[in-house]
Amino acid sequence: MQDILDNIVEACRPYCSTGHVATYIPELSKGDPTALGISVADIKGNIYSSGDADHAFTIQSISKVITLCLALTELGEDIVFSKIGFEAVADPFNSIMRLEMDNPHRPHNPFINSGSIVTVSLLPYSDPEEKIEAIVDLAREMAGNNIISINNDVYFSEKFTGDRNRALAYFLKSNSSMDGDVEEILDVYFKHCSIEMTARDLSVMGATLAADGINPMTGREVISADVARVVRALMVTCGTYDGSGEFAVRVGLPAKSGVGGGIMSTLPGRMGIATYGPALDFRGNSAGGIKVMEMLSEEEGIRLL
Amino acid sequence: MQDILDNIVEACRPYCSTGHVATYIPELSKGDPTALGISVADIKGNIYSSGDADHAFTIQSISKVITLCLALTELGEDIVFSKIGFEAVADPFNSIMRLEMDNPHRPHNPFINSGSIVTVSLLPYSDPEEKIEAIVDLAREMAGNNIISINNDVYFSEKFTGDRNRALAYFLKSNSSMDGDVEEILDVYFKHCSIEMTARDLSVMGATLAADGINPMTGREVISADVARVVRALMVTCGTYDGSGEFAVRVGLPAKSGVGGGIMSTLPGRMGIATYGPALDFRGNSAGGIKVMEMLSEEEGIRLL
Amino acid sequence: MQDILDNIVEACRPYCSTGHVATYIPELSKGDPTALGISVADIKGNIYSSGDADHAFTIQSISKVITLCLALTELGEDIVFSKIGFEAVADPFNSIMRLEMDNPHRPHNPFINSGSIVTVSLLPYSDPEEKIEAIVDLAREMAGNNIISINNDVYFSEKFTGDRNRALAYFLKSNSSMDGDVEEILDVYFKHCSIEMTARDLSVMGATLAADGINPMTGREVISADVARVVRALMVTCGTYDGSGEFAVRVGLPAKSGVGGGIMSTLPGRMGIATYGPALDFRGNSAGGIKVMEMLSEEEGIRLL
Amino acid sequence: MQDILDNIVEACRPYCSTGHVATYIPELSKGDPTALGISVADIKGNIYSSGDADHAFTIQSISKVITLCLALTELGEDIVFSKIGFEAVADPFNSIMRLEMDNPHRPHNPFINSGSIVTVSLLPYSDPEEKIEAIVDLAREMAGNNIISINNDVYFSEKFTGDRNRALAYFLKSNSSMDGDVEEILDVYFKHCSIEMTARDLSVMGATLAADGINPMTGREVISADVARVVRALMVTCGTYDGSGEFAVRVGLPAKSGVGGGIMSTLPGRMGIATYGPALDFRGNSAGGIKVMEMLSEEEGIRLL
Repeated sequence: MQDILDNIVEACRPYCSTGHVATYIPELSKGDPTALGISVADIKGNIYSSGDADHAFTIQSISKVITLCLALTELGEDIVFSKIGFEAVADPFNSIMRLEMDNPHRPHNPFINSGSIVTVSLLPYSDPEEKIEAIVDLAREMAGNNIISINNDVYFSEKFTGDRNRALAYFLKSNSSMDGDVEEILDVYFKHCSIEMTARDLSVMGATLAADGINPMTGREVISADVARVVRALMVTCGTYDGSGEFAVRVGLPAKSGVGGGIMSTLPGRMGIATYGPALDFRGNSAGGIKVMEMLSEEEGIRLL
Repeated sequence: MQDILDNIVEACRPYCSTGHVATYIPELSKGDPTALGISVADIKGNIYSSGDADHAFTIQSISKVITLCLALTELGEDIVFSKIGFEAVADPFNSIMRLEMDNPHRPHNPFINSGSIVTVSLLPYSDPEEKIEAIVDLAREMAGNNIISINNDVYFSEKFTGDRNRALAYFLKSNSSMDGDVEEILDVYFKHCSIEMTARDLSVMGATLAADGINPMTGREVISADVARVVRALMVTCGTYDGSGEFAVRVGLPAKSGVGGGIMSTLPGRMGIATYGPALDFRGNSAGGIKVMEMLSEEEGIRLL
Repeated sequence: MQDILDNIVEACRPYCSTGHVATYIPELSKGDPTALGISVADIKGNIYSSGDADHAFTIQSISKVITLCLALTELGEDIVFSKIGFEAVADPFNSIMRLEMDNPHRPHNPFINSGSIVTVSLLPYSDPEEKIEAIVDLAREMAGNNIISINNDVYFSEKFTGDRNRALAYFLKSNSSMDGDVEEILDVYFKHCSIEMTARDLSVMGATLAADGINPMTGREVISADVARVVRALMVTCGTYDGSGEFAVRVGLPAKSGVGGGIMSTLPGRMGIATYGPALDFRGNSAGGIKVMEMLSEEEGIRLL
Repeated sequence: MQDILDNIVEACRPYCSTGHVATYIPELSKGDPTALGISVADIKGNIYSSGDADHAFTIQSISKVITLCLALTELGEDIVFSKIGFEAVADPFNSIMRLEMDNPHRPHNPFINSGSIVTVSLLPYSDPEEKIEAIVDLAREMAGNNIISINNDVYFSEKFTGDRNRALAYFLKSNSSMDGDVEEILDVYFKHCSIEMTARDLSVMGATLAADGINPMTGREVISADVARVVRALMVTCGTYDGSGEFAVRVGLPAKSGVGGGIMSTLPGRMGIATYGPALDFRGNSAGGIKVMEMLSEEEGIRLL
């Protein structure tokens, strides 16, 4: 496995140059466009990694998976999916149009921004501090790493430039698709996007999902098998923005990407796989990371579909 | 003229019952659904009125006319129309979809909410207090009434329930279609919607537009003839929300309506006409007021088109 | 008047080079991009013209005015406007999206393609031949020229390349927004777009609308005053595609343009004005013609709004 | 397995009454709303069935799978996916809006109507007869049943009422998203929707997809493993209209449904599963069939995701 990973990282690194580091959040623009790393954690507790697998970066939209796990655990499927749909949309992740077009104005799935903002709003904690602590705690449990925390520079950068998310949140509020204080909800949202991890951490998180919720490093059941299953299914249909359908065909794994350059993926019953490469394609997915996942699928048969 | 107005108000009052008082802003829901009044001010300084013409109400979207007059006066056509379009849209006045669909994300005209919010943002004053003072001053000059002021109960009600406008404003900000502090801009916006006038005041404002900017009661030129002309043209194409085309066919006058129940209209070179009736049709135009305008057009030939 | 027209044509001819001759219908691409002409017909029967005012061209969308006059005359306002709306849309003239978005799927106004196709479908004649004959007859009556006819080369070119209009028509049919045989309706539609006239003819047509339906050259009442009024109002709000609002502000006259390069305009109680210039701006309006209309408005005060 | 199927059909039959038989194609309205059947074919060649598994019905949209298999086989992935996308859309299967909104106007995936019409257009045969013959031949090969044929009553009914599909096709043609003669292409399209099969046939087709293209009844490789894989992935993300995301979560199998009441599903390496029940839910999926699939997933663990 180590050789495979080394070879694939080497083969895929040139593809990084086809992408661009995200610039809409100033802090993200500091990412190294040539970086590429991979980590694989199997459900027996072995970890293999290559390249920049120990570089910490903010997980951005990958946090939507953690927060959904938390909401499903605390509230159950019925409540969560009465407020948020299951369906992929062929629109950008921050589209308001898509929301306005449909009635009721319910976010289409938990992995677009509007859906994740509503997920945050639903979390049954008494104040924003408790919400973000619960999310970070679950991140630590899923990744088996107790020092995972929030990158404050990125958080402030997100908060400062988050007007599009404010527009989404006020729209949801004005249509009674969301309750609560918008700025408080967004504060938690910006913070969870700014959780910092390594590809190694994310691969363990993927292994936890692969093992039906049991973290293979710690042996603890951190989410239920049902929650793991629901989240994996949504990762298949909606995990890589409006490239999810192509990813399903070309890679065939549940996965969730983030504009920080991470991809967290899971092969049920087998392993978690994570990549890091901050140069993004036009859809916001890691250019090098997608290529790595394709090679693992095509050449090593690491695929579910 | 007095007899004509008395007869028309009496004939149209039953149509009020086909409408409903606006409820989305709590304070507005206190309006009397059976109220109906009209006032006509000719450019020689005569005023005729009938029914509830002296009842004060908030002018809501009619304020968009005043603010546009101010922006055109202070900045000129070129600057204003580089940021806002001229075109009517067949979408509701608070649609974000319409903005997102087009590129650049420029408001389509100054009489939809997004367009008016941008107009407020452009006003070249150093702080929000000065902005709203300049708007109220112009309202007083156009209506020839120095005691016109803001209804604070309505203003707070607007501010408290204005999440849809916040969504619009943050969307505009996030796309660089607007600069400035969103909450400060919206504060001025909510205040200008809450300016309180009577149908009598509005009819003088209409007469000022009819007289190419010269208030016939005071003799003062309060806006230029060019500004009056531009504003009148936009009132024809976009003045009564997504009912502007039907209004042009059935009434044929430049007009601007508000959800407070007012309609302010103008027959160039002749007179201003204003109605008040807070029961609104499904588009947000005064049900009784529209009927009054139709009768004036059909039976008295008071029409431009 | 003759001097005025000569000067304006000369001054505006350079603006033709900012536009491009329509190419989507192959026959139209043969137009001379440098051509520019104007004709003014007053309601006393005088005609003044300058430049290429006697060049015959197909009137394209200007035919929508004639067909609407015919439908309103034969069926009345109520029937026509139960099937077609009054409202301008800020979408291209051939948008299906706009139709699909609203419920019912009723064309927004009679001057976009979908609206005109429905207008053609409503005409109460027993076969397509009678329909197009009635339209051509009314064109002749309104223009006072009995030799007006259809350009068959353009008609065949339109028919051959008319797939977008077929899409619109089948969409309308599938939603019961239109009855009848789609290909027969479109055949009449393509033919009426291919009616050939000169700017001189169109100026008389504009004068007929200005004179409340009485052709000033023949003295015959060819449409009623009510029909003329309704059509003029729609020309103000929807006559120049998604540039109608800007035209209202800059020119201030009821007008209808066509991608053949014509603009037909009318100043009620005074005159008809028509221009010809096949180089079009990005919206499909004659680049030189729009400039001519603007100069007449600004410098000669020939405006209504 | 037989007992399981008997029990599930009995348990799910009441759910049929929550649905309605399709009426937009008159012939389809003749379906029996209480019918429900299931068939399971494993990759060893065993078939189990229960209820109305031998009732023949038209497969409607399930034919899109066969035609896609044929196109991928004859042309390869690169050509097919240069003309059609991979992405699920949260819009109805016959939306034109969705096409018009994006640039280029490429169908989003091969399982919405526009995508399947383009797939039909691409098939490299010299005339429409050959195209439909090749499709029917592949259907026979995949289902292992040589008497599969077209239901002509349904075909004529589709053709007669297919105006919405004509609108889609002419829109695609007008934007150069499709070449060829629209009526010829649609004729093949209407015919492939009218292919008649039983749930038993469809279960074998599903088993062929499960066995990487080898029909377990005949032992013949009828499509390649790569084609089977691509098609299965698309069935996961786009197979059950705008309910695909919910189906992935609740059932977790690649599947394709049709408004004739069929669902064809596949568990890779294990079996094909097909249900028949013409009472449809609001999305156009079989109400009883969906319930059967959910019970197989929840209670028997027959799921992939």
